[in-house]
Amino acid sequence: MGMPDPKLDLPDVTDVHLARARIQHQIKPTPILRDPDLDEWAGCKLTVKCENFQRTGSFKFRGASNAILCLDEALDDEGSGAEKLAVATHSSGNHGAALALAARLSGRQAHVVMPEDSVVTKVESVQGYGGTVHFCEPNSRGREAGLEALTGKGMIAVHPFDRLEIIAGQGTCALELFGEDPRLEMLVVPVGGGGLISGCALAAATQGVSVIGVEPEGASDTIASLERGSRVDDWQSDTIADGLRAVIGVRNFALISRLVSRVVAVSDKEIRAAQAVAWKLLRLVIEPSSATVLAAIARYPDLFSRRRVGLIVSGGNVLLEDWHAAVKERN
Amino acid sequence: MGMPDPKLDLPDVTDVHLARARIQHQIKPTPILRDPDLDEWAGCKLTVKCENFQRTGSFKFRGASNAILCLDEALDDEGSGAEKLAVATHSSGNHGAALALAARLSGRQAHVVMPEDSVVTKVESVQGYGGTVHFCEPNSRGREAGLEALTGKGMIAVHPFDRLEIIAGQGTCALELFGEDPRLEMLVVPVGGGGLISGCALAAATQGVSVIGVEPEGASDTIASLERGSRVDDWQSDTIADGLRAVIGVRNFALISRLVSRVVAVSDKEIRAAQAVAWKLLRLVIEPSSATVLAAIARYPDLFSRRRVGLIVSGGNVLLEDWHAAVKERN
Repeated sequence: MGMPDPKLDLPDVTDVHLARARIQHQIKPTPILRDPDLDEWAGCKLTVKCENFQRTGSFKFRGASNAILCLDEALDDEGSGAEKLAVATHSSGNHGAALALAARLSGRQAHVVMPEDSVVTKVESVQGYGGTVHFCEPNSRGREAGLEALTGKGMIAVHPFDRLEIIAGQGTCALELFGEDPRLEMLVVPVGGGGLISGCALAAATQGVSVIGVEPEGASDTIASLERGSRVDDWQSDTIADGLRAVIGVRNFALISRLVSRVVAVSDKEIRAAQAVAWKLLRLVIEPSSATVLAAIARYPDLFSRRRVGLIVSGGNVLLEDWHAAVKERN
Repeated sequence: MGMPDPKLDLPDVTDVHLARARIQHQIKPTPILRDPDLDEWAGCKLTVKCENFQRTGSFKFRGASNAILCLDEALDDEGSGAEKLAVATHSSGNHGAALALAARLSGRQAHVVMPEDSVVTKVESVQGYGGTVHFCEPNSRGREAGLEALTGKGMIAVHPFDRLEIIAGQGTCALELFGEDPRLEMLVVPVGGGGLISGCALAAATQGVSVIGVEPEGASDTIASLERGSRVDDWQSDTIADGLRAVIGVRNFALISRLVSRVVAVSDKEIRAAQAVAWKLLRLVIEPSSATVLAAIARYPDLFSRRRVGLIVSGGNVLLEDWHAAVKERN
């Protein structure tokens, strides 16, 4: 118990470098932001990596692009004439939109199983990029059942986080960041299914950067899993951070166990306050899932005091009404 | 008529380079954004310079920082013991906040004359950076009278745009942009008092980049001035672009007449639509004044077709209620 399956296909940092070369022409290099007033607020030196400006509005496009381009390469190896099969996934929205765009760019169809309570704008986004949405019950069982129905029809499943190519693709975000700021000592990353943090941790390990994960209190299954030494897979999430409701993946937990220094929790109230800080000091509109990293800085100041800290702001796909309400109360 | 006063103290591109070296430690280098979907929308290749992420939320901090640091240098030349006098200005808000911060960083007091109908958040911003606000009637005469009262008390007036150091400071924004994207063919810049465009045009001229200015239809005094060949100084502005209501300055008009290819006008309705585009495709919250440049791309597609075009997004200090209303209608 606690030891990862030795037969698990886990990526290493070479896969992250290969992913970077593979997706470079499709993704956007995202900007970093720094701000003296933010540093004063934080009590440490922050470099903010803005994946909210990535195509489809979140880091998820990096992994999706890598996964689809790997499928295309495999097809090329088989020789011409082979059919480009449709891809399918389940997603609260950001991975769905990312996969829809990556599939479209490669001439494939994408089908996305989404919980009935998904953020409306995220549903519209998947459809806007040409994806077909299939609604399911808002829990892990509903998602998995919906996806099985689609793969049963011959579609290729592209899991949102528990997959080698996805993890490697998400890690390119940290590679890019370390190139822009080689002096970082710590990296703070949101944890949902764990695709982003496990990929980033691979890149960070070779750089000597320690990685801190952040979960909403209502979706802190990874913290529970680390505490008991094995993956908790029956967590019922309850948080406004809709992008972090998924339970940690098998490959993701294996990598986090080895490579991540610590995972901390923040409350929904702290997340909303952090959305307001991001607007006030950085002029960024960020979704609750992204705001967790700023919330962690506020809640655990001793962890970060005076260090050079990178924050990954993972996405900006908000329902404007909710965002405005969160920010208005505090400005 | 139409010929600038030969005795006018106009900056040249050397002043812009000197300003860059002088303010480098105070300003933030702002990111650029590019997006394939935006390019498809625009019909040309856009590089967006995000001065909304500058300190105090607009490019104005560049000029204010340069002006204050020049005052400090002059004081140093006089030897020690001389008093750091307070500075005063009139401003719809962005220059006021910028001057307040620049003054604070140099240990000076700042007093800002603001029209009674200023955006509330801009008034609060000036005060937040430690500036003292004095309200006036919302017209040029009211502003000038308010400022005279302050200089009468011994304060140093720092005009928001019609001043060598301010123009040179604002031009650093274009210098930075050309360093980031050396292949630009055109640069599109909002025109209010003309501080930003005249500084940027100095930088663009040495780079072989043509400059297009954009005014709101309700504040198109520069277009009128260019048409008649001399500065129109009695224009009554009526536009939602609160940062562009000022009448073009004397030095600014002299430089624009020589260096700017063309100034075009956009309507308030087009400005609001452009704010929605900036949100939808770039995830940027930009103020109406900034949205003019995107509005110009939409209204005059033939001017920019297939060219490499730089846009200066000048600021992001919106009243969230107004911004949300503008964006909501169109999403």
